[in-house]
Amino acid sequence: MATAGKVIRCRAAVLWGPNQPLSVEEVEVAPPKEKEVRIKILAAGICRSDDHVIKGAMASKYPVILGHEAAGVVESVGEGVTIVKPGDKVIPLFLPQCRKCSTCLSPEGNLCILSDVTGRGVLGDGSTRFRCRGQPVYHFMGISTFSEFTVVGESAVAPIQAAAPPEKVCLIGCGFSTGYGAAVKTGKVTPGSTCIVFGLGGVGLAVIMGCKAAGAARIIGVDINKDKFAKAMAVGATECLSPLDSQQPVSEVLSERTGGGADFTFEVVGRLDTMVDALASCHMNYGCSVMVGAPPSTQKLSFDPMMLLTGRTWKGCVFGGWKSQDDVPKLVTDFMAKKFDLDTLITHILPFEKIQEGFELLTSGQSIRTVLTF
Amino acid sequence: MATAGKVIRCRAAVLWGPNQPLSVEEVEVAPPKEKEVRIKILAAGICRSDDHVIKGAMASKYPVILGHEAAGVVESVGEGVTIVKPGDKVIPLFLPQCRKCSTCLSPEGNLCILSDVTGRGVLGDGSTRFRCRGQPVYHFMGISTFSEFTVVGESAVAPIQAAAPPEKVCLIGCGFSTGYGAAVKTGKVTPGSTCIVFGLGGVGLAVIMGCKAAGAARIIGVDINKDKFAKAMAVGATECLSPLDSQQPVSEVLSERTGGGADFTFEVVGRLDTMVDALASCHMNYGCSVMVGAPPSTQKLSFDPMMLLTGRTWKGCVFGGWKSQDDVPKLVTDFMAKKFDLDTLITHILPFEKIQEGFELLTSGQSIRTVLTF
Repeated sequence: MATAGKVIRCRAAVLWGPNQPLSVEEVEVAPPKEKEVRIKILAAGICRSDDHVIKGAMASKYPVILGHEAAGVVESVGEGVTIVKPGDKVIPLFLPQCRKCSTCLSPEGNLCILSDVTGRGVLGDGSTRFRCRGQPVYHFMGISTFSEFTVVGESAVAPIQAAAPPEKVCLIGCGFSTGYGAAVKTGKVTPGSTCIVFGLGGVGLAVIMGCKAAGAARIIGVDINKDKFAKAMAVGATECLSPLDSQQPVSEVLSERTGGGADFTFEVVGRLDTMVDALASCHMNYGCSVMVGAPPSTQKLSFDPMMLLTGRTWKGCVFGGWKSQDDVPKLVTDFMAKKFDLDTLITHILPFEKIQEGFELLTSGQSIRTVLTF
Repeated sequence: MATAGKVIRCRAAVLWGPNQPLSVEEVEVAPPKEKEVRIKILAAGICRSDDHVIKGAMASKYPVILGHEAAGVVESVGEGVTIVKPGDKVIPLFLPQCRKCSTCLSPEGNLCILSDVTGRGVLGDGSTRFRCRGQPVYHFMGISTFSEFTVVGESAVAPIQAAAPPEKVCLIGCGFSTGYGAAVKTGKVTPGSTCIVFGLGGVGLAVIMGCKAAGAARIIGVDINKDKFAKAMAVGATECLSPLDSQQPVSEVLSERTGGGADFTFEVVGRLDTMVDALASCHMNYGCSVMVGAPPSTQKLSFDPMMLLTGRTWKGCVFGGWKSQDDVPKLVTDFMAKKFDLDTLITHILPFEKIQEGFELLTSGQSIRTVLTF
């Protein structure tokens, strides 16, 4: 392509500092270095983690280009890249898969050592590929997808089938997979089981879809906002309840409803008290509770260890436990084979330049997922 | 037998109240009622849980006959008993298996609803089968094995092969199975894995034996008492360390030694701080930590939930997770086939009347397991 090896000037949403509006302006995107890939973004979802950085609740350097859930097409590749070539449709991976660290070598782990979970904001060589108004702009989670073009490491990109619709499968890059994997991959929900999902936002709905796909017989949705029940029922919940409807602790209500506790419970809120509620709501002797929501940083959780000694299992996952580069293409294939639906999760589609409006839909609770198209 | 249907007068160790010595004296043992079995005890191990009741640290009614790890022979059976007949060699089960409750019906759980974990001290009909000095004496964990004869519910007895040596296989009734099962049944230790065992008492040694049987490549024993290292190495540990030998937190030392954390860790101490150390010492992304030691009652454990969200699994078990009536006979068969050895765990054998001496060996730290013979 004519652009290969050259700096690209394009639009990106720059965050100049915490609690500032996103500023859509012209940036320079350097060509990919060795083992790097430059991607033209076609669609990107707006996720709450992006908003955490805007609010200053998640570590980042500034200025930064946010976004970590997208689909695009490879524009050019650096030296030594073998996994994709220009023209390939791809999903950028905020959790990379280097295939060399102890986690990647384990059959179970997925939190690759190259993941930028601490907000370093740079690529593998320690520098950035973005400049704006004459200064470097930092990367977010290694992929910065709120830009018409971005550069990512080779381990942070997964090729997907050419026919996949970008404005839908972009959700496989984060929100959908995080919830769906918590049920089918991390929790390993079993056919005929009873599941409880605490928190009915987009990720919670994806957990319900995973429980349903795994053959759960009963799926109970729990949320203090009853407006969310209809959509939960639409994607597979068999019943819903609000903890505010009873004087009793919600774990007692749920234990009674399920004959001593559920087989599987999922916490998709990110609150310490609901994490303990979810643990208490699975069967004391064989229940498994999965943490999906990120807890407030640096806070300690306090619980009675007898809840575990008596036989419960407590676990957690990031990105649903999926091995990103291995599993994202398979999830796209499953989507194309209609094994699950993404339309229910997408409430708004906006042109990229309306990104600020998209964040307002998120923070006001009006959207589940807003997808930006480029 | 001539005794069937009659009250038996025999010797038992009666605890008249907390912090009193055990008193070996004559008791009356009533015949078994419907679905009950009267057993002549041949050998009984002394376990720390018995001592917790003596010290008042575990709920019980008084007077009580302690003991929950034994082997014996069926003396007589009540109406409707089908699982054993007089003359059968058996192990009494402190965790029964009723085969009807939600736990027994689950393929995973083992904490049967009939378990007397709250210290009710009576059999199924709400009464006791023991009398001493004209008053009722309570049962302990449904089996009260520090008596020449005892009565248990049909769900609390497992028939074992006739040739099994009672003074050895009695350990399968509690201590051995609790540790061994934590590794092979609950933790599901995998071949080639790295395991860490915190606490090298008798149950800790049995965990090491389980890790070895499951094919672990590295087994690291951890204890502040280095006198315990030789025996740990003898049963399968590949290395041992004391947390007191380093200024660094033990989880950091272990993480460095294991390239980021072990595959499996086991807490066999029953302290809140070592429970968190054990969790922190398994790999953040795919490690599994199993709680085996009972925590101090009513105390809350405080930890950073990110330790779970990043991919660890935390679980616990009572009696190693075994389904007692199903699995105890199989464990005896495995012992008879020399799949594991019990001699290393048995440091003292004493006649029943020296039970008080046996408890002194336990509390002074001189014994691993003392077995009483009748």
